[in-house]
Amino acid sequence: MNVGILTIGNELTSGRIQDRNAAPIARAVREQGWRVSAMLSAGDDEDAIRDALDFLLGRAEAIIVTGGLGPTADDITTAAVARAFDLPLCLDEAVLSHIRERFAERRLVWTDNNAKQALFPQGASLIANPAGTAAGFAVQREGKVVAVIPGVPGEVCRMLPEGVIPLLRRLFPEATLPLATATFRLFGIPEAALDAALADAGLAGLGVEVGFYPNFPENHLVLTARAASAAEAAARLAAAGERVEARVGRRIFARDGETIETIVARLLTAHGLTLALAESCTGGLIADHLTDIPGSSIFFERGAVTYSNTAKMALLGVPEAVLAAHGAVSEPTARLMAEGIRRTAGTDLGLAVTGIAGPGGGTEAKPVGTLFVALAAGEETLCRRYALRWDRRRNKIMAAFLALMMLRRRLAGEADDGC
Amino acid sequence: MNVGILTIGNELTSGRIQDRNAAPIARAVREQGWRVSAMLSAGDDEDAIRDALDFLLGRAEAIIVTGGLGPTADDITTAAVARAFDLPLCLDEAVLSHIRERFAERRLVWTDNNAKQALFPQGASLIANPAGTAAGFAVQREGKVVAVIPGVPGEVCRMLPEGVIPLLRRLFPEATLPLATATFRLFGIPEAALDAALADAGLAGLGVEVGFYPNFPENHLVLTARAASAAEAAARLAAAGERVEARVGRRIFARDGETIETIVARLLTAHGLTLALAESCTGGLIADHLTDIPGSSIFFERGAVTYSNTAKMALLGVPEAVLAAHGAVSEPTARLMAEGIRRTAGTDLGLAVTGIAGPGGGTEAKPVGTLFVALAAGEETLCRRYALRWDRRRNKIMAAFLALMMLRRRLAGEADDGC
Repeated sequence: MNVGILTIGNELTSGRIQDRNAAPIARAVREQGWRVSAMLSAGDDEDAIRDALDFLLGRAEAIIVTGGLGPTADDITTAAVARAFDLPLCLDEAVLSHIRERFAERRLVWTDNNAKQALFPQGASLIANPAGTAAGFAVQREGKVVAVIPGVPGEVCRMLPEGVIPLLRRLFPEATLPLATATFRLFGIPEAALDAALADAGLAGLGVEVGFYPNFPENHLVLTARAASAAEAAARLAAAGERVEARVGRRIFARDGETIETIVARLLTAHGLTLALAESCTGGLIADHLTDIPGSSIFFERGAVTYSNTAKMALLGVPEAVLAAHGAVSEPTARLMAEGIRRTAGTDLGLAVTGIAGPGGGTEAKPVGTLFVALAAGEETLCRRYALRWDRRRNKIMAAFLALMMLRRRLAGEADDGC
Repeated sequence: MNVGILTIGNELTSGRIQDRNAAPIARAVREQGWRVSAMLSAGDDEDAIRDALDFLLGRAEAIIVTGGLGPTADDITTAAVARAFDLPLCLDEAVLSHIRERFAERRLVWTDNNAKQALFPQGASLIANPAGTAAGFAVQREGKVVAVIPGVPGEVCRMLPEGVIPLLRRLFPEATLPLATATFRLFGIPEAALDAALADAGLAGLGVEVGFYPNFPENHLVLTARAASAAEAAARLAAAGERVEARVGRRIFARDGETIETIVARLLTAHGLTLALAESCTGGLIADHLTDIPGSSIFFERGAVTYSNTAKMALLGVPEAVLAAHGAVSEPTARLMAEGIRRTAGTDLGLAVTGIAGPGGGTEAKPVGTLFVALAAGEETLCRRYALRWDRRRNKIMAAFLALMMLRRRLAGEADDGC
């Protein structure tokens, strides 16, 4: 089956915002074994939208549309789709009262233009929005379907798998083969090297599609197996997974739904261990990641963002002499930070990072990107030096990732190879 | 003038890679006062490319194409454009020897498929590539232009301003209008209410375009004025800005490039004030935001992520009795956290947040989303209670934003209205 993707919004055609919806939609479509015939972006302009719909309707059985469902005057997607299908707009009382309830709950001032979000083309099937106000909808004509959802990425990533894809699977059963997918999260192997490593794995021969999705600092590998039966698809997926493991197994740190944070949280909880953090260059990012996990208070005792030397001395007990002799960004300081936070917090583990995120602060001996990660656990304190080479934000993200990876290896009882 | 944008590559239609070229191209087009009529992505497929070109040629005078200029078999953009314009391909000897030189310089193995990058449609004007191997080109027919450049973002960001835009300006002198834009960042007013408030502002009458861009928890308002002269465009923009100020001025917290973090950083630096943070439910997010700003060590002394009561007592000196009597999420605790971190860090200001991010931990008296923000400054400590209603992550984001807003109001000497 051919699928067209249409993302709508002046913010896209003005370049104000980089579209973040087309790629995940294309990925979801591909995972179903369907083909993306074209991806289009149009402004909030009725002629442009109609034009784009005509183009896509000529090239696809299903069209997924995002954007322009807001309450404001510039949001005209619903009206444009209705006119393109020659359908009148009808008010959905249930949706209207739902929107009013949301406003009441949030104590928001009601303005009548919000009622616009309860208008749908006659006969449209609604697509629930579990993450926002605007419901989506789908209209059909001559065996073709146009499914419309809001353009807010956080809403798309819920409504696509929960609403749009199931709807299209129901409407196009003949185009829907049972499928099985697996995701591998890898670190420390560039996309091209990953591609080369799997070149002779014969995954296509197994009827398994491979997708590479760079997601700094990770690379995600998605295997999709389709077959006549679910069992067959699962068998093919398993066989493909084994071949991937055999080739790049040591670069895989997580599978499917897991992330480095959830793995660390699971291992800490399972072992009944507590953790404290001493962050310098990551500035609280590691603590932010860990506290995104519900229930993290079970294992996370405290974090110290010790940006100044005074703070490193006061909160972590790093001696002034060490800071003077080796500097704040040094192995001795990193080790003492990890041991200091572990001691003062009274936790089982102490994890510390100190480095130079940039753009300033670099020296000959310690250029921008210099990073030390230390983990105080049991009898020993492990410390590693890294050289990062990105911008300030990405250096922070990479530093936080490397620190959590060190912690993960320790908790999993793996040898520490530094990545 | 209408411009169409076509980004080509299977990596785009497969969702493997999120296109990063369309937005900067659209922005550059808009900065010329031109209009983007449509943006299309197509795979490395001749029919799809031809199809897309036909669609865009019917809707724009100029088309900017990226991608598919590489040496490998799947790169067919040049051939597809040539065929769409019924032009033969001709070898450009100068370009061929330039490519051979690059290979020699880099000691790369020459393979004949690289000669493909020296083939161009007959009569095409070349667009130099200062950042890579593949040159771009432009072909014209019946007053329409198709400009083609490689899809590597690093090459696009050079060839667009240095080659493509100047070329189009030369070819369409009459279509070059000056334009002026302004961005307002608002908080505490929903998109619909913002739209309603500006409905009678007559901005369109001033020839000023309005765009609303929700960006949780902010709403961004972008004004774009186009006129015969730069002075006229600036005058229209200024007039429109005044009308916006008059209607929603008190909801505007930042303009153009500024963010809540950069404003706080600028004010702290300007006043020579130092800050320390005590974060509970935000888990380090406020510190992460502030330390994203280069040079933040000038004003940011330390942050304490006090997730446990023990940490609140040890690092902030919150008495056990207060925690027992009022709980960790309470006004007395929030006040003592702010005063405690200020005292122990010896900073001018102490900012603290404590709350229940959810999904668990709520009670009848203190439901999920209960938040206390406290700011210890000068002689007084300000404390406010909020009720947040989002998921865990968005409650953290909103809490961090509310805390920084309280700090901003204090630093700017504004009355504290809570939002």
